[in-house]
Amino acid sequence: MTSARPTVGFIGLGIMGLPMTANLLKAGFPVVVWNRSSGRVDEAIALGAQRGTSPSDVASKADVTIVCVTASADVEAVVLGAGGAIEGVRSGTVLIDMSSISPDVTRAIAAQLKAKGVEMLDAPVSGGEGGAINGTLSIMVGGDEAVLERARPVLEAMGTRITHCGPTGAGQTVKLCNQIAVCVNNLAMAEALVFCQKSGVAPSKMLEAITAGAAGSWQLSNLGSRIIARDFAPGFKVSLQQKDLRIALEAAETIGVPLAGVSLVHQLLAVVEQREGGDLGTQALVRSLEMLAGVEVGTPQA
Amino acid sequence: MTSARPTVGFIGLGIMGLPMTANLLKAGFPVVVWNRSSGRVDEAIALGAQRGTSPSDVASKADVTIVCVTASADVEAVVLGAGGAIEGVRSGTVLIDMSSISPDVTRAIAAQLKAKGVEMLDAPVSGGEGGAINGTLSIMVGGDEAVLERARPVLEAMGTRITHCGPTGAGQTVKLCNQIAVCVNNLAMAEALVFCQKSGVAPSKMLEAITAGAAGSWQLSNLGSRIIARDFAPGFKVSLQQKDLRIALEAAETIGVPLAGVSLVHQLLAVVEQREGGDLGTQALVRSLEMLAGVEVGTPQA
Repeated sequence: MTSARPTVGFIGLGIMGLPMTANLLKAGFPVVVWNRSSGRVDEAIALGAQRGTSPSDVASKADVTIVCVTASADVEAVVLGAGGAIEGVRSGTVLIDMSSISPDVTRAIAAQLKAKGVEMLDAPVSGGEGGAINGTLSIMVGGDEAVLERARPVLEAMGTRITHCGPTGAGQTVKLCNQIAVCVNNLAMAEALVFCQKSGVAPSKMLEAITAGAAGSWQLSNLGSRIIARDFAPGFKVSLQQKDLRIALEAAETIGVPLAGVSLVHQLLAVVEQREGGDLGTQALVRSLEMLAGVEVGTPQA
Repeated sequence: MTSARPTVGFIGLGIMGLPMTANLLKAGFPVVVWNRSSGRVDEAIALGAQRGTSPSDVASKADVTIVCVTASADVEAVVLGAGGAIEGVRSGTVLIDMSSISPDVTRAIAAQLKAKGVEMLDAPVSGGEGGAINGTLSIMVGGDEAVLERARPVLEAMGTRITHCGPTGAGQTVKLCNQIAVCVNNLAMAEALVFCQKSGVAPSKMLEAITAGAAGSWQLSNLGSRIIARDFAPGFKVSLQQKDLRIALEAAETIGVPLAGVSLVHQLLAVVEQREGGDLGTQALVRSLEMLAGVEVGTPQA
């Protein structure tokens, strides 16, 4: 290490990656960055990061290399592909994948890195763009616990809740559990709202009566009133939720777990995606039930 | 009125009704009670209540008559049947049905009472036995708002959150919304737990990582760890949940709202009810997924 703080490599400066990089810089870590499109790199440079020429170049300069991209194929490309991190990464360093991808793909990539003497942690996050900006992400970690302890100061610059979930892949599994619960809680909210509206009762009264009790959820507390206000701006986009649900359903099929609720939500969201667009927030799930019931939640009633 | 506080008639001293009666007595209301089986009546008498000889007798002595029984047919029996409240109830008084029943049946009963000069409120509750004992129920009220204001001191002896939801039946509609959200949130928890377990990750780690975030719900916070501890004692019984879901699904069919999530839960709970009994707590929904996946949540893993 050439400085008091280890150098962090950051690959993937998206909605999540750029603010996470900003928080690493704020915490005093030297950060070398790479992103597929260069505009985001310029923003990171302006914040104090150094420019890397490729994932391989970034990894060669880093003590801890972080990957934060979209899907399994993206992680495979920036880690294992031509010019990928695996070409530059030094033996004895750590690679942390903070993307949300398949646990099986995670285990395969970790095995290849292990053969080069590189430890990998899977460390997907929840908390969304707000959590990334405020450094309050929940980070779900799979991999060796001693490796997590080495990497913990880096993770603490980005998140407030860091949970060691188990061996390699366990972080991704827990992230999928998170998405399972999120999306089925979303269905619960959508069914309650549409039933309420079509029954002729004001959904705002319903929220007032039930949110604090056994029917309560983060989804209901945070998205219920936005649906009533017809606000479908994304906290989390339908298209990204669909990617995660696809991984969950594939994994469930592989291990033999019937995710009937998730499957239903996935199919209803596919209709929303086709008819209204995948850039809407996940609360747009309610649109599918509204189409079927012929009502819009929040419309004033006679 | 013959005393400083109006006399309350209480019909139905079940798990909910008896502690609600106790709280009315504690608040200083004279209470006249009736119950199908007399053992519960003796308990209420010991607390200071007066014995009524029939629902009609109770209603004849009350300024506010409360009904708290199980199903639509039970309310019809004690209000409209032989010796029912409608035979004794005085014009100008109020009848409050705190049972959880069909909004349509509610409207039909209210119309018959109206013809006798009696105002009815539907006022189902959530918060369970604990809420009934502690006087912290959430009470969802349908009916005339001025009538609610007259009855409010009586309701305040039993609950802390009293929401006027709309006209007659609206309280029952909101209670159904509550059960819709409760049961589908329960499914969300069950799918996440079984997926986690079968993936080889400790469900306790999953709860630790996700409960405070966007995946959070009352169900997850309160029942998740009980499932892991294999505690299926009832907070709320499967058989009673099934009764409420039947009402919700019938109402949904009548008004044309597709409650696919609720329908799925109702069918899975029917399996649990047949194979393991309806007296289990609703968290036993997870048993259906465990049977299919061939795992038990909370079993130590290799």
